[in-house]
Amino acid sequence: MASSSKVDTDHSITSSSPIISTKLSRMDLILRILLFVKTLAAIIVMVTSKQKKEVFPAAHLVVVAKFDHSSAFIYFVVAISVACLYSLVTALRSAIRPYSHSRTLFFTAFFDALIFGVVASAVGAAASIAYVGAKGNPHVGWSKICNLFDKFCKHIGGSLILSVSASITLIFLMMISTFSLYRRSR
Amino acid sequence: MASSSKVDTDHSITSSSPIISTKLSRMDLILRILLFVKTLAAIIVMVTSKQKKEVFPAAHLVVVAKFDHSSAFIYFVVAISVACLYSLVTALRSAIRPYSHSRTLFFTAFFDALIFGVVASAVGAAASIAYVGAKGNPHVGWSKICNLFDKFCKHIGGSLILSVSASITLIFLMMISTFSLYRRSR
Repeated sequence: MASSSKVDTDHSITSSSPIISTKLSRMDLILRILLFVKTLAAIIVMVTSKQKKEVFPAAHLVVVAKFDHSSAFIYFVVAISVACLYSLVTALRSAIRPYSHSRTLFFTAFFDALIFGVVASAVGAAASIAYVGAKGNPHVGWSKICNLFDKFCKHIGGSLILSVSASITLIFLMMISTFSLYRRSR
Repeated sequence: MASSSKVDTDHSITSSSPIISTKLSRMDLILRILLFVKTLAAIIVMVTSKQKKEVFPAAHLVVVAKFDHSSAFIYFVVAISVACLYSLVTALRSAIRPYSHSRTLFFTAFFDALIFGVVASAVGAAASIAYVGAKGNPHVGWSKICNLFDKFCKHIGGSLILSVSASITLIFLMMISTFSLYRRSR
């Protein structure tokens, strides 16, 4: 174990060796796979949130709640899909050819941060609408809908938890790529 | 000019010299001041959005629109205030003592990305509520309010434009700090 750790440290400081250590490289790959799983799950949970409800059984009046009834939820699905695709491409890249150039690491650090911003904005957009759906806003007369569409709201909540978890994964990925550049720059 | 550029390049690759070039350092300071101005302006425009409207003059019925009637707008003000304070502290740091250590640059790159995520989530949250305010959502019976509160909505729109502009400034700042680490790591 001690010898393996020594090898990792040496890798990070000699210019002919891989740009990030084996341990960090493995962690990077695992986190990218995790990001892919979380974002894919968040999309599936969001798009399967459709719920029908019969409000007046005598009149057969049925109301439907669907994610695409809200622009914020549509934006959420598009943004999380971008993050999902990004995680797949970078996971494959990380698996096939671990970061061998500083330039690859620089672009990875930058795009990880950019995708983090995209996911954060999607979480903000969807969470604010979900909050109004759950609590309503009496100041402007927007009534809550979660008392009627319980399954729909549970799906939205689940999808939001998954995407917040994906954001945290992205923070760790940003940390790894920036830290690897820092180790190389000392 | 050619000689100045040569000096900058040399600075970036010799370990005893400043960690980022003079040009990049100056650009970093300017962008941090710009970020401070934009975030401060976004907060001021948002908190001064209050509008009163007499809906039934005969009955003296007055309705009020204020940013703190929405949790998303309160979150927006808190998040943009954090970014504003961060820009002030890092601008002062950048002015007094330009990045002399790789470690400072690493933390700057990481926290710039983190604050970018905070600002992006705030923009997402406020924009999604502003969109419902402007267009309404007939699927759930949320009526638009911008036909009544025009001044209020203009303030929200202005504040959103300023915060999107602050996000773009943060992208450039992230680029500078990550690029400086990359130059050093080659």
